[in-house]
Amino acid sequence: MTTPATTRIPQEERTRAMRQRLMDATVELLVEKGFGGTTTTLVSERAGVSRGAQLHHFPTKNDLVVAAVGHLTAIRGSDLEAAAARLPKGKGRTEAVVQMLGDHFASPVFTAALELWVAARTDPGLHDAVGPLEQRVGRETHRLTVELLGVDETQPGARELVQATLDLVRGLGLANTLGDDAPRRRRILTEWARTLETALRPADSEGDNR
Amino acid sequence: MTTPATTRIPQEERTRAMRQRLMDATVELLVEKGFGGTTTTLVSERAGVSRGAQLHHFPTKNDLVVAAVGHLTAIRGSDLEAAAARLPKGKGRTEAVVQMLGDHFASPVFTAALELWVAARTDPGLHDAVGPLEQRVGRETHRLTVELLGVDETQPGARELVQATLDLVRGLGLANTLGDDAPRRRRILTEWARTLETALRPADSEGDNR
Repeated sequence: MTTPATTRIPQEERTRAMRQRLMDATVELLVEKGFGGTTTTLVSERAGVSRGAQLHHFPTKNDLVVAAVGHLTAIRGSDLEAAAARLPKGKGRTEAVVQMLGDHFASPVFTAALELWVAARTDPGLHDAVGPLEQRVGRETHRLTVELLGVDETQPGARELVQATLDLVRGLGLANTLGDDAPRRRRILTEWARTLETALRPADSEGDNR
Repeated sequence: MTTPATTRIPQEERTRAMRQRLMDATVELLVEKGFGGTTTTLVSERAGVSRGAQLHHFPTKNDLVVAAVGHLTAIRGSDLEAAAARLPKGKGRTEAVVQMLGDHFASPVFTAALELWVAARTDPGLHDAVGPLEQRVGRETHRLTVELLGVDETQPGARELVQATLDLVRGLGLANTLGDDAPRRRRILTEWARTLETALRPADSEGDNR
C-alpha cells in the first residue's frame, strides 16, 4: 500500500499523523452523530485510514473515543493556557477568565466529552477508562483557573467558589448542547464574574455572613 | 384478556395506572441502561403491560421517553414545591433552597432527563419534542426558585444570579452522574448560598463594582 511519495516521510511522523486523523474524526463523529452513532467503520472512512491500521492503533471503539477525547481535552487545555496569557491583567480580568471558561465548555470538545461521559455512565468498561481521564482534566482545569484568577485558596470558601465556577460553566455547556444561546451565557457569566470578584476580595465584605 | 377481578376497577383508572407503570419503567430503564439500552420491549416487560397496550398508548420509543421524562419532571416539580413549603424562613433559607435544588438535580429524574437531552442532540425528531419540554421545565424551575428565594428580579443582576444558580446545579448534577460525591456538592452549595445571599442583599455591597 505504500507509495514512493509517502515513504519519504519518516514512519514515526506518519504514525503520529494517522493517529491524529483518527482522533479528529472520532471527535467530529461524536459531535455529529453521538456516541451511539459513532462506529469504528465511520471513523476509519472519515480519517482515510485503513481498517487494519485503525485496529492496530485502537483495537476497540472505546479505546478510540477515550484516546480522542483525552487527547483533544489536553490540546484545548494548552489552547486555554495560551489564550489566558493574552488576557488583560487587573480590572476586567475575572470576567475575561470566566467568559473564556464559558466558551471552552461550549465548544465541540465539551460536546464530545459529554457524549463519552453519558455513555460511560452505563458502560462499566468505558467508565473505568473515563474516570481517571475526568479526574486528571478536573484537577488541571481547577489548577489553571486558580492560577488565572490569582485566587488564594487558603482563604475560606475560595476553593469552593472556584469549583462552583467550573460546575457553573459545565452546566452552561450542557444547556448549550440543546441549543441555548451564547448571549444568555455571557450575561450570566458577566454577573457571576462581578459576584466572584466581590466574594474573593480580601475579607472585608463577608464577616457577618459566616 | 380481562378477568372478573380487574373489571371492577373503572377503565379510566386502569388506563391511568397502566400509563403510569409504563412511564415509571421507562425512567428506571433510562437510568439503568441509558437511552441506547432502553427498548420498548424492555419497558413493556418491566411494566407488566402487553406490547399492544403499550403501542396503543405510546406508538414509538420517543413518545414514551418524552412523556415519561415530562411527567416525572412535573411530579418532581410538585415535590419540590411541597418540600419548599417546609423549609425554614429567614436565616438559613437561601442555603436550604440551594441545597434542595442541588439534591433535585442529583436525582434519578435528572439522570433520565440527561439521557434524553443527549439523545435529542443528534435526533431531530426527539429534539423537536424535547425542546418545548425543556423550555417549560426551565421556566417553571426559574419561577419557583425566584419565589423560594424571595428574589426581586428588578434588581440589576438578580435574574442572572438565579439563572446561574440553576446552571450550577445542572453542572453539579452532570458531575454527579459520573460518581461525584454529595459532600463536595454540599460544600460548594453552602459557599454559593453565602455568596448569593450577599449579592442579592439590597444594593449596599456592590456599588464600586459596576
